[in-house]
Amino acid sequence: MMRDRFLRAARGAATDTTPVWLMRQAGRYMPEYRALRREHPMKDVIRNPQLAVEVTLQPLRRFDLDAAILFSDLLVPIWGMGEDFELVEGRGPVLTRELDAPALASLPAIDLAKLEFTFTAVRALRSALDRPLIGFTGGPFTFASYLIEGKPSRDYPKTRAFLHAHPAAWSALMTRLADNLADYLRAQIEAGAQAVQVFDSWAGVLSAADFQAHVRPALSRMLTRVGDTVPRIYFSTGSAHLYAAIATLPVEVIGVDWRVSLRTAAALLGDGGAPGADARTRRNAPRTRILQGNLDPVLLLGSEDDLWAAADAIVDEGRHIGGHIFNLGHGVLPETNPDRVRALIERVHERGGRSAR
Amino acid sequence: MMRDRFLRAARGAATDTTPVWLMRQAGRYMPEYRALRREHPMKDVIRNPQLAVEVTLQPLRRFDLDAAILFSDLLVPIWGMGEDFELVEGRGPVLTRELDAPALASLPAIDLAKLEFTFTAVRALRSALDRPLIGFTGGPFTFASYLIEGKPSRDYPKTRAFLHAHPAAWSALMTRLADNLADYLRAQIEAGAQAVQVFDSWAGVLSAADFQAHVRPALSRMLTRVGDTVPRIYFSTGSAHLYAAIATLPVEVIGVDWRVSLRTAAALLGDGGAPGADARTRRNAPRTRILQGNLDPVLLLGSEDDLWAAADAIVDEGRHIGGHIFNLGHGVLPETNPDRVRALIERVHERGGRSAR
Repeated sequence: MMRDRFLRAARGAATDTTPVWLMRQAGRYMPEYRALRREHPMKDVIRNPQLAVEVTLQPLRRFDLDAAILFSDLLVPIWGMGEDFELVEGRGPVLTRELDAPALASLPAIDLAKLEFTFTAVRALRSALDRPLIGFTGGPFTFASYLIEGKPSRDYPKTRAFLHAHPAAWSALMTRLADNLADYLRAQIEAGAQAVQVFDSWAGVLSAADFQAHVRPALSRMLTRVGDTVPRIYFSTGSAHLYAAIATLPVEVIGVDWRVSLRTAAALLGDGGAPGADARTRRNAPRTRILQGNLDPVLLLGSEDDLWAAADAIVDEGRHIGGHIFNLGHGVLPETNPDRVRALIERVHERGGRSAR
Repeated sequence: MMRDRFLRAARGAATDTTPVWLMRQAGRYMPEYRALRREHPMKDVIRNPQLAVEVTLQPLRRFDLDAAILFSDLLVPIWGMGEDFELVEGRGPVLTRELDAPALASLPAIDLAKLEFTFTAVRALRSALDRPLIGFTGGPFTFASYLIEGKPSRDYPKTRAFLHAHPAAWSALMTRLADNLADYLRAQIEAGAQAVQVFDSWAGVLSAADFQAHVRPALSRMLTRVGDTVPRIYFSTGSAHLYAAIATLPVEVIGVDWRVSLRTAAALLGDGGAPGADARTRRNAPRTRILQGNLDPVLLLGSEDDLWAAADAIVDEGRHIGGHIFNLGHGVLPETNPDRVRALIERVHERGGRSAR
């Protein structure tokens, strides 16, 4: 029988305990992942469904997680748009050729046939798993920032400058990415993904005004096109100043980073009737607001006392905000001890069960 | 006669128009700076008072700025603590040797004699200038993040992890840096700096809870030790979620980055009586709250229409929030056209004068 705690919580239903999964739950902190990566470069792991499935399943063999998330990379859908990228260790994905404004403005519609390896992996995972599988992709802004910036950056000035220097190209790019990334998620859903997460990790570098005017419309278009057949999760970091606008997005779950408490996030997100939201947006926004997060991943590297105090507080807060899925506030760090991860997951389940609704 | 518009505004007094200076107003966007740097490596410019004075004055020869800011680097005071660093182009300052937890916990008291070149430059600037000179240094957290991280980072996980993994070393480091950096600023004030800015650029990566517990006490100690003989400016980025705590710092001016409007920042900062502030902190906080900022520097690279609309809105907002010093929300970008900078400064003065109090 499928363990559906995560999906029930994502829909706002009661659960026996707090569900938990972790961003980057598959990754360098696990010896079996490092062993596999010594044999296979990252690109092969992503493009070979057998390897992608193996890596996705590694953390589920070790830990009592409530969901799996497809192992892939944020830039993968660019292969369906006629471009290529390299994965540079410690630097992230980098486009093989630079795209100028005209090229960015005329990205083609996505060719899903070129991404068949993803859907094959999703189908294989769905039949192998006894718990929900989460599909994912990037948000239009974060995806665009990889295309425009060309290197890792603290606050993506090139992307923010592009948006103002080339407004027509930006608008065309956002619309195209909204549709392409939505279609990529829909194909994952058709292949068996039971929830989807949009990683808009860099959205927090934007001013509230720019997010509202130049990014939110594309994001809303994308999420509407994905539809509500499965729960949609929107994750961003450093974005408390955007929560009034994020609150009006058509998503079921909002991923909160480590910077603010769940309680503060819930207050900032309000009921989706934030200032600036028009009546139509408010109507489209789901009534229940489920939060996902938000233990600071660095706490897994510190003292047990600090870790358990923070984890317990998050589980307890989560019981008072309408609905909660436990996660980290960002990905598991490579230095993390897997035993700590196991203990964390057990503790969340134990404590969440004590106060279960 | 000294032009005192900037100092009057920093003290909450009426001015004939909005004062303006720009973070990184001296820098790579100016041809005369690039010409000088072709002859002299960065370290020489900083350590040679004649060169530091020249670079500090370059933007004041071109533009009608209301203040000068000493040209230096954030890590300079480490030379007074027995360590050295290199300035790697496009990467920022990097310590010459890595410091482990015991080394970080036992940094010596600052030897100001080793930083005499800074105070010589300040004295020379003060006598050369007909407008106020701003001294500066880093905040304890941001300074520590350079010591601990070893490379540029989006969200400084090593530093945040260190804080939890080595609480005693962290506490010793914060206290030592608070005193050392305060003494460095006091010596700049004694040499002639008429205002000081604390750049705590990376504070925004912290959770509200960690900032409150592990950083704000040192910052408050530092700012109190600096004293209120000259206006103190505190600048951070991505820190709207910390404003309730920042509001209680003993500073006269708060620098706002581009992410939130001045109006939103003013609302978040409130009157210094934020939740968590004890009565003593509230008493210490100045009554007037002057904001500095906050035009997104990328707007200088976009269309004139966008630029003027945003700049005008900031000047107008500034007239309704108790007190305002115009600045960018972060440093001038290297790609910026100096003519745009000149036009911006003129426009701020012109529009600010029209609605002057």
